[in-house]
Amino acid sequence: MSHCIFCAIIAREAEASLVHEDEHTVAFMDIRPFTPGHLLVVPKRHASGLAQLDPQDGGRIFAVGQKLAAALRDNGAHGAGLPADGPRADGVNLYLADGAVAGQEVFHVHLHVVPRTAGDGFGLRGRPVTARRPDLDYLAGALRRRLGSVQAPG
Amino acid sequence: MSHCIFCAIIAREAEASLVHEDEHTVAFMDIRPFTPGHLLVVPKRHASGLAQLDPQDGGRIFAVGQKLAAALRDNGAHGAGLPADGPRADGVNLYLADGAVAGQEVFHVHLHVVPRTAGDGFGLRGRPVTARRPDLDYLAGALRRRLGSVQAPG
Repeated sequence: MSHCIFCAIIAREAEASLVHEDEHTVAFMDIRPFTPGHLLVVPKRHASGLAQLDPQDGGRIFAVGQKLAAALRDNGAHGAGLPADGPRADGVNLYLADGAVAGQEVFHVHLHVVPRTAGDGFGLRGRPVTARRPDLDYLAGALRRRLGSVQAPG
Repeated sequence: MSHCIFCAIIAREAEASLVHEDEHTVAFMDIRPFTPGHLLVVPKRHASGLAQLDPQDGGRIFAVGQKLAAALRDNGAHGAGLPADGPRADGVNLYLADGAVAGQEVFHVHLHVVPRTAGDGFGLRGRPVTARRPDLDYLAGALRRRLGSVQAPG
């Protein structure tokens, strides 16, 4: 396997600011954060994209993302005695890019956990359009047929 | 409980273009798609945000998102005999907004599954900055302490 920076972090061969580790996942600070406290959750087992990801590992990285979101949003205002230092978040975005065209840069699956505060400048770029129901029904039908034939990843 | 459009879709009291349904989740076309084929995956059990979401349901919506990503990317070019109609995707973004400040508009947890093609105009808005290691270590330390005291959601 060619060099993978996340595998190197997991093996403690590359520097990272770790926040969480268990048997199947690690989470650490993104070195190019969109907002302060931006985290990445990765499976320990290398998977370049969703098509290679063990579905159980997928559930695990989401579960860790959910816990980290709770930790990010708990800034001491909501509970007695919790530490109030560190990142602030009034909301959280989870984000995953699968494929270069989707913005994936490191080809080891990673879930972004991005703490949000008002006016932080982060968000989605794009123009949603109101779709017509017949078009949506057509797309849904095509996808239902594909779901009948694709195998579950992993 | 006040009216929830996703609960109404689950109960078949509101229109939707369904793509997937199982015991715990449904998936349907977003009526304001960022790109053609944009889907939402929701847990059947109402949860307004990540803090209310059963962690098992979280794993389930991620697993469905992973399957839908495979279906979106399988446009007939990669397999023999698969239908080539419907949405195209060379990549996929998964996205979840937790909290109004994060862009959440419907307060029933939903995972966006956004098919991507070159030049589709969708992406992230924001300016990542290169962080200094001491700052990341400080944030990581604060989050590790919080993880030690927050309860798992659900």
